[in-house]
Amino acid sequence: MALPLRTNLKHFLCFIQRFNPLKRRFCAAVCPENKQPPGSARVFSGIQPTGVPHLGNYLGALENWVALQNQYPSVLYSIVDLHSITQAQHPDQLRNNILDMAASLLACGINPEKAILFQQSQVSEHAELCWILGCLTSMPRLRHLPQWKMKSKEKNEGSVGLYTYPVLQAADILLYKSTHVPVGEDQVQHLELAQDLARIFNNRYGELFPEPRALLSSTRKVKSLRNPVTKMSKSDPQTMATISLTDSPDDVALKIRRAVTDFTSEVTFDPETRPGVSNLVTIHAAVAKLSVEEALSQAGGMDTGAYKGLVSEAVIQRLTPIREEIQRLRADRAHLEGLLAQGKHRARELAAPVLAEVRHRVGFH
Amino acid sequence: MALPLRTNLKHFLCFIQRFNPLKRRFCAAVCPENKQPPGSARVFSGIQPTGVPHLGNYLGALENWVALQNQYPSVLYSIVDLHSITQAQHPDQLRNNILDMAASLLACGINPEKAILFQQSQVSEHAELCWILGCLTSMPRLRHLPQWKMKSKEKNEGSVGLYTYPVLQAADILLYKSTHVPVGEDQVQHLELAQDLARIFNNRYGELFPEPRALLSSTRKVKSLRNPVTKMSKSDPQTMATISLTDSPDDVALKIRRAVTDFTSEVTFDPETRPGVSNLVTIHAAVAKLSVEEALSQAGGMDTGAYKGLVSEAVIQRLTPIREEIQRLRADRAHLEGLLAQGKHRARELAAPVLAEVRHRVGFH
Repeated sequence: MALPLRTNLKHFLCFIQRFNPLKRRFCAAVCPENKQPPGSARVFSGIQPTGVPHLGNYLGALENWVALQNQYPSVLYSIVDLHSITQAQHPDQLRNNILDMAASLLACGINPEKAILFQQSQVSEHAELCWILGCLTSMPRLRHLPQWKMKSKEKNEGSVGLYTYPVLQAADILLYKSTHVPVGEDQVQHLELAQDLARIFNNRYGELFPEPRALLSSTRKVKSLRNPVTKMSKSDPQTMATISLTDSPDDVALKIRRAVTDFTSEVTFDPETRPGVSNLVTIHAAVAKLSVEEALSQAGGMDTGAYKGLVSEAVIQRLTPIREEIQRLRADRAHLEGLLAQGKHRARELAAPVLAEVRHRVGFH
Repeated sequence: MALPLRTNLKHFLCFIQRFNPLKRRFCAAVCPENKQPPGSARVFSGIQPTGVPHLGNYLGALENWVALQNQYPSVLYSIVDLHSITQAQHPDQLRNNILDMAASLLACGINPEKAILFQQSQVSEHAELCWILGCLTSMPRLRHLPQWKMKSKEKNEGSVGLYTYPVLQAADILLYKSTHVPVGEDQVQHLELAQDLARIFNNRYGELFPEPRALLSSTRKVKSLRNPVTKMSKSDPQTMATISLTDSPDDVALKIRRAVTDFTSEVTFDPETRPGVSNLVTIHAAVAKLSVEEALSQAGGMDTGAYKGLVSEAVIQRLTPIREEIQRLRADRAHLEGLLAQGKHRARELAAPVLAEVRHRVGFH
């Protein structure tokens, strides 16, 4: 089989990788032909209701979500509360966290006219398809997937829900015949299960589900301000490690001032040897919409102390309208609930016929 | 604490066993106070859509189902198609089997005015509650339960659905706040999981679910006609081993004539040493509504050959109206579908408020 002469390296990689399903995600991420999504493309992604997101969530995923709603003809974003109960949750806290997450997504720029924003547990079809797909999933298939390995602290000590978490994720995606799924690298193996289940279902019951492709979100990774070799995380016990989208300007400035750097005063970008200051450059570039080179050029001549002031200003400038909008939205619970109810109806309009078809193919009616 | 003076042995056993949840099922089965079910009692049971049941299903379980619908104020019987797909099913076969099971249950005497007869997959709340309960179930809790041990032929080789089968059973039961569950001995461990999950949920989220109690169905066990030490089973590869409720009188007579007995011609009842002839006595007594002693007395002086004729007649007499009614009902698919749709609506009326309360307690709204 001859390759077209105009094949450049990226095309060639795509061409090769198309024959290797495990590598196909890289193709989806880099292949130029994916820049123009086809008319039937549909993006699905989910986020756990952890309350107000932090800066790492925003820059690493949510900013990309906002971009995707403008690039794809059909987009669904789900607050995945069914997933969240795979770890113990306090009910009042969970209720608030769901609404805080909804408010935050809207404040970050998710537009309910463009993207269907909904709460997973309000659409019964997710759990129903999860059961059906679970009957097509072998037990050992799940044993080495990241969610279980990371969170079942001791071997086999998690709940059934935690073990079967990736099957529900597959159901979330396939229920809408989604074609593209923005994922972090840690979720790629879970998406591969969704791809496998699409194939297994199609082979057994006839073609129905497209194989969803990964859209690797930006490789931008915001690190902890206290331990810059780990990811910024909501569950970090050090409160100074994480910037919440609702942190006041003073809090933002304090946390950045206290950010761990090193004993070199120059500002350079070298995440391997200088993770602390490089994390500040990453944050600065991201919030000010600069390249790393542009950010470094703005830092020209500054020591890390002065640079922290510059980064603070840029972060505060970027977060202020988001913080104010979250506060405004949070105050109107009924409005948020109304928006989620609308999202539920729109999601069900898409999900119900797909599940009805699945049920028919399986033999339930 | 003093025991009432009138305490007899059965009361005493109940009294003791009430403090031992693992033994409570025996109390439910034998305690005289259970003969008068309280006004809030609710019976739930399920049967897989295996098509037309066999004589063992009828005498071992379904006859008891018919009796229970007259004894309890609220009764639900579900054709559990979500459970059936934990093993591979052919879709057309499954569709037919669901309607054949519905026709058979009606023909056996299930009265839709007294019992809610419905198809499990039509009530989305089953799968939804299953997910929530799965988040309260530890993985090791399921490893030694019978469904998984029996059916995952090699270690860990079954599907996720098969492994989590007992969690869905618990959801089936608890979704209706069922108080009593007729079960075979092989299902007692599964019911114990439902009891545990009721307790775990109530402890974490406040009292909601009654702890369902087992109603051990009759100890009557119909055996294979070809190998009378094993249960009569639909999946028996020997077609002569099993009498279907739709077998013609000629087929019934042939199967009983060919039934394996032994070289003693006398008719006696000793299941240990003479399983074949004892199985015929069991069947005879059950279909003719006699005690074993009465059946033996009718056999007085007959050899096993002649007795087989008597048993055939009794079976044919009992099954003929059932067979004819199944055939009549099967011919009217729309009527059966209409009855199942009614059952679905009645089941959802009960299930929806319970699931709404569960969702609220968990923190989804």
